[in-house]
Amino acid sequence: MINQYINENKDRFVNELLDMLRIPSVSADPKFKKDVLGTAEFVKQRLIDAGADNVELVETAGYPVVYGEKMVDPSLPTVIVYGHYDVQPADPYELWNSPPFEPVIKDGKIYARGACDDKGQMYMHVKAFETMMRTGTLACNVKFMIEGEEEVGSANLATFVKENKDRLKGDVILISDTGMLGNDTPSITTGLRGMSYVEVEVTGPNRDLHSGLYGGAVANPINILCQMIASMHDENNHITIPGFYDNVDELSQEERAEMARAPFDLEKYKKALDLKDVHGESGYVTMERNSIRPTLDVNGIWGGYTGEGAKTVIPSKAFAKISMRLVPHQTSEEITKKFKKHFESIAPASVRVVVRPHHGGEPVVTPTDSVAYQAASKAYEETFGVKPIPVRSGGSIPIVSMFKSELGLDSVLMGFGLDTDAIHSPNEHFGVFNYMKGIETIPLFYKHFAEMSK
Amino acid sequence: MINQYINENKDRFVNELLDMLRIPSVSADPKFKKDVLGTAEFVKQRLIDAGADNVELVETAGYPVVYGEKMVDPSLPTVIVYGHYDVQPADPYELWNSPPFEPVIKDGKIYARGACDDKGQMYMHVKAFETMMRTGTLACNVKFMIEGEEEVGSANLATFVKENKDRLKGDVILISDTGMLGNDTPSITTGLRGMSYVEVEVTGPNRDLHSGLYGGAVANPINILCQMIASMHDENNHITIPGFYDNVDELSQEERAEMARAPFDLEKYKKALDLKDVHGESGYVTMERNSIRPTLDVNGIWGGYTGEGAKTVIPSKAFAKISMRLVPHQTSEEITKKFKKHFESIAPASVRVVVRPHHGGEPVVTPTDSVAYQAASKAYEETFGVKPIPVRSGGSIPIVSMFKSELGLDSVLMGFGLDTDAIHSPNEHFGVFNYMKGIETIPLFYKHFAEMSK
Repeated sequence: MINQYINENKDRFVNELLDMLRIPSVSADPKFKKDVLGTAEFVKQRLIDAGADNVELVETAGYPVVYGEKMVDPSLPTVIVYGHYDVQPADPYELWNSPPFEPVIKDGKIYARGACDDKGQMYMHVKAFETMMRTGTLACNVKFMIEGEEEVGSANLATFVKENKDRLKGDVILISDTGMLGNDTPSITTGLRGMSYVEVEVTGPNRDLHSGLYGGAVANPINILCQMIASMHDENNHITIPGFYDNVDELSQEERAEMARAPFDLEKYKKALDLKDVHGESGYVTMERNSIRPTLDVNGIWGGYTGEGAKTVIPSKAFAKISMRLVPHQTSEEITKKFKKHFESIAPASVRVVVRPHHGGEPVVTPTDSVAYQAASKAYEETFGVKPIPVRSGGSIPIVSMFKSELGLDSVLMGFGLDTDAIHSPNEHFGVFNYMKGIETIPLFYKHFAEMSK
Repeated sequence: MINQYINENKDRFVNELLDMLRIPSVSADPKFKKDVLGTAEFVKQRLIDAGADNVELVETAGYPVVYGEKMVDPSLPTVIVYGHYDVQPADPYELWNSPPFEPVIKDGKIYARGACDDKGQMYMHVKAFETMMRTGTLACNVKFMIEGEEEVGSANLATFVKENKDRLKGDVILISDTGMLGNDTPSITTGLRGMSYVEVEVTGPNRDLHSGLYGGAVANPINILCQMIASMHDENNHITIPGFYDNVDELSQEERAEMARAPFDLEKYKKALDLKDVHGESGYVTMERNSIRPTLDVNGIWGGYTGEGAKTVIPSKAFAKISMRLVPHQTSEEITKKFKKHFESIAPASVRVVVRPHHGGEPVVTPTDSVAYQAASKAYEETFGVKPIPVRSGGSIPIVSMFKSELGLDSVLMGFGLDTDAIHSPNEHFGVFNYMKGIETIPLFYKHFAEMSK
């Protein structure tokens, strides 16, 4: 009955998603403010249409949180669905095969910024909810909490949660903002990396200078910034910030052996990225480097003349955006503090530096023995025909640890995307297969969660 | 008589310069093509007005060379005036106190891009020529060669010179495209650094990647580029490119002692640039570091997300513009080759690199015992009241060595600008005092050069 409803409404489910993808809800860039708010309005309306109660846009210091709920029976467990309606910036635009905010379906995949992260995966829950409502199969109480600032660090969500603890009483947080190993090897994410994100500014002379008249005699802030960044990895690609690894949770050989059983083909991996070789921390394999090990990556750098042709200038300033992915037992506050102290300490007297913390998030490991995980595992097994593999992801969903600390709730990360979906990249996409599988699998989670909670 | 004419026409001389400064002749950026050509036309007209013969815009593969001449008497020596009508890009625009192409006079200084480099200094020669013509005092034959591609490496001037050797027969090249130590300590530049300018591209993965899912497992081209750039200086700020110093002309202790006699105040220097400390090669003082020593400076760097807020991306590519200033006996071809070989050799297997040579120029040292230098020195002494000091400049005028090799002619570098004129920087300016002093001093050079050449 559920499947029949889903099949009959498949085209509409897809078209509604395309409509939402047409709204460029880039939270990082103020010029899209109208569109971000428009997307919140869109989600609110769809929740109302689906039959949710008390639907509203809850104002925050930033973008509003879309809240809605359906309380069926106080004796039933309550699922709190989290997702986000904002998306990453789409640049560089020129690398998209079709405009990022004009979704197209090609070879069964929906191409658009946010198709997977997270509009597509978030909207699966709205449509699964609609399905359960229309078919009278809603097995749990449900509360929706869809935010608009995930891509900029969920700065105001913690406040929202603190101020709405009663409204957010429940039994589990359900999130689809992660991926699976493959369409034939479903997996459930059981760990996430945390993050420290900083912007650094290096100032040399008080104005741009002629590189002939001053070159060699004053500090060039670009050269200095490069030296400072380079010095933060040693020859084994260990991060050199003092104390950086102090609290890192080292996995046992058993745990690493367990991880190694997940299917992975290094040659395929390199081929897909057009790499002659991978690059990372000595002593760890690729799947460990991008999941259980912390990192330091420059996400953006700029300074001096970047236009056409040649300009012989020593710029006054150089800038970089640097993020560090954190693993369990590291904290963003600790690492941001250690980065700042170190960065300031290695700056030569010939420059001045400023470190501006952007936002942080804490790493998490979610239990696999919980009722919620078991219910999710069962649901995947029924729709995919195989038991999902638990995996640690390298990504970050900063708010997962916040839900634990503020609400005392664990999260279950039911992702349906693929690593190849190019989230945060040009040509982001999401399989229609994955979208529909999500809508099928979610009601089964509710069913099993209700039964197993009895 | 000459001075009377100059005084009577001072305001017009200044206003004509302001008119030229209003035309944004940025040769590095194709979008200013119309304006660069418009400036060439402007110079051509003023030469005609001043009384030059055979004035024309000589086409090249790039921007035209403005040519004009006045042959007074074959028995007189011939001065070939070189200058350029193109200017550096004006960005960053936001740092200008007044728009770069809307010249204003403040505290006796003309503020505009090109005010000093080189429109102001080039136009002194046009007005000095006019003055000598109107007052019947032109003591030498004169030929003008004013190009429009100096700021992008004078790519087509060598061809022009080769194809016009007859037309360019003469006795000396006269150039005002350098500075003086100060308005009370005039100086004449006797040496220039050469340059190699390259653009480098580092490619990691074939597309931008999510720094959570891939961070730590693949080479981040920005981090790698920073490491490669950082590795090109050692702890003593020596450049590590193999063979980089092979042909460097090391000055004797006597020569260095002579240099040290030029007035220089390190504290003033630091204060003017708002620097806690200077930065450069061990074993050399500031005035040596920026004149007799070669350098490697990053003039621009870019990669990844540089917009507002935070984007967690590992970019596919990172870029840098890098220039090396060269000293006598180094050649741009040699150094560009060594840089390319080295840069490619230090790239890890996890990235691909491309090195694109931009343009080069050769270092020069001009003789101080020549008739031309002596005539110039005498001219300064008469207008400034003190003997000018010979100094080696850190800047580059690539074509000076080309004039020597192609035409067999030495150049005399009669500069009237100041290091504080902020050429290549926001708020470039040129003192009205310096502009007028130039117009006064140039005719005296012609007079002495003619007499001393007898």
